[in-house]
Amino acid sequence: MERERGILFVLSGPSGVGKGTVCKALRGKDMDIQYSVSATTRQPREGEVNGVDYYFKSKEEFQTMIANNELLEWAEYVGNYYGTPIQYVNETLDQGRDVILEIEVQGALQVRDVFPEGVFIFLTPPSLEELRNRIVGRGTETEELINNRMNVAREEIEMMQHYDYSVVNDQVDCACDRIQAIITSEHCKVDRVTNRYKSLLGDE
Amino acid sequence: MERERGILFVLSGPSGVGKGTVCKALRGKDMDIQYSVSATTRQPREGEVNGVDYYFKSKEEFQTMIANNELLEWAEYVGNYYGTPIQYVNETLDQGRDVILEIEVQGALQVRDVFPEGVFIFLTPPSLEELRNRIVGRGTETEELINNRMNVAREEIEMMQHYDYSVVNDQVDCACDRIQAIITSEHCKVDRVTNRYKSLLGDE
Repeated sequence: MERERGILFVLSGPSGVGKGTVCKALRGKDMDIQYSVSATTRQPREGEVNGVDYYFKSKEEFQTMIANNELLEWAEYVGNYYGTPIQYVNETLDQGRDVILEIEVQGALQVRDVFPEGVFIFLTPPSLEELRNRIVGRGTETEELINNRMNVAREEIEMMQHYDYSVVNDQVDCACDRIQAIITSEHCKVDRVTNRYKSLLGDE
Repeated sequence: MERERGILFVLSGPSGVGKGTVCKALRGKDMDIQYSVSATTRQPREGEVNGVDYYFKSKEEFQTMIANNELLEWAEYVGNYYGTPIQYVNETLDQGRDVILEIEVQGALQVRDVFPEGVFIFLTPPSLEELRNRIVGRGTETEELINNRMNVAREEIEMMQHYDYSVVNDQVDCACDRIQAIITSEHCKVDRVTNRYKSLLGDE
C-alpha cells in the first residue's frame, strides 16, 4: 500500500487559553507526532528554552526569514513577531509523519490558505472570566495589556467558525484526550484512506 | 446554553466483518450512547435474545412495519429482511443523547438520505482472505452461501467511499478505540458547537 502523507494539525486559540500547557502535556503522551517549533521575537519567559519552546530571534533576523520565504505563516501580535519555519513541516509530512503546530489565531488562518487539507483545532476557554483569570494569574502583564489581550481574545473567538474542531480547555487532561481522539479519527477518514479499499479489493 | 441534539452514528460494513462483536464490546465500555435494536426476519443464532440483539419478526409483521412507515431503513439481504424502527432513534436524539446503529450496507446508504448529518463508519476487514476465514469460522453457512456473501462483500467494500470513516477491524479492542475516538471528535466539530462560542461571548 502506498504510504499516506502525514497530517498537519494546527492547535490555536486565544492568548492565555493554555495552548503551551496543553502542547507540553501532549508531548508527555506516547504519540507518533512531531512538534514544530515556532520562531518569535518576544522575550523568553522563565524556563523557556531556545530551540525547544521557541526559536528566539531578533526583529532583524525575523524580517530576513520573511524576506527569504522561510516561514509558513507569521504574524505580529501585541508588538512581537511569531512564525513557523516551513521546511521542517513539509519534510516531516512527506515522510508520512504527522506534525502539530501550536500557533496564534492570525497565523493559523494563514496556514489554512496554504494547507487546506490541514486539521484546525481551536482551544477554547471554559468562559471569558476564566480566560481573564489565567492571563492575570500568569503575572507577567500590566492591566492595560490584560485589557488589550481580552479584546483580542474576543475577536479571536469569533474566528472559531473557521476551524474544524473546538476543544474546551476545562482540564488539561480532558483537552489532551479530545485532541488525541481528533488525531485518531482523522486517520480513519475515508477521504484519507482511499488507497485502503483499493488495495483491499486487489489482495485476494 | 441550548442543548445540542444527539448525534446518530451508523456502524456498517460487509457481512462477517464483526459488526456485532465490535458493538457488543462497545456496550461494555462506559459511554453515554444508546444502541438501537434492529428488526429482522432472519432466524436467531445461538444465544441471541429477542429485543436485545434484534427484534425477531415474521415476514408478515415486517411488511406491516414497512407499510406503516415505522422503519428508518430496511433491506432484503440474502433472503431476509433487516430494518431500523424510527421512533426510538428520533426520540433519543431529541433528548440530546447519541444513538449508534449497527446495520447492513444497503440500509446505511438509505439512512444517509434521511440523516445526512449522521456519522457513517465503515468497518473494514484487514483483508478479503481474513473476511472469508471469519465467515467460514462462523460455521453456519454452506459453501454456496459463503461464495455469495464474499461477492456481496466485494460490492459492499466499493461503498466505503460513501461513508465518513473507515475503521479496520484488525483487533476488536483497537476498532473500539478508533470508534470511541470518532465519537469524541465528532462532538468537538465546530459545525456542531456553534452555540458554544455564542454563549462564550455573551457570558462575561
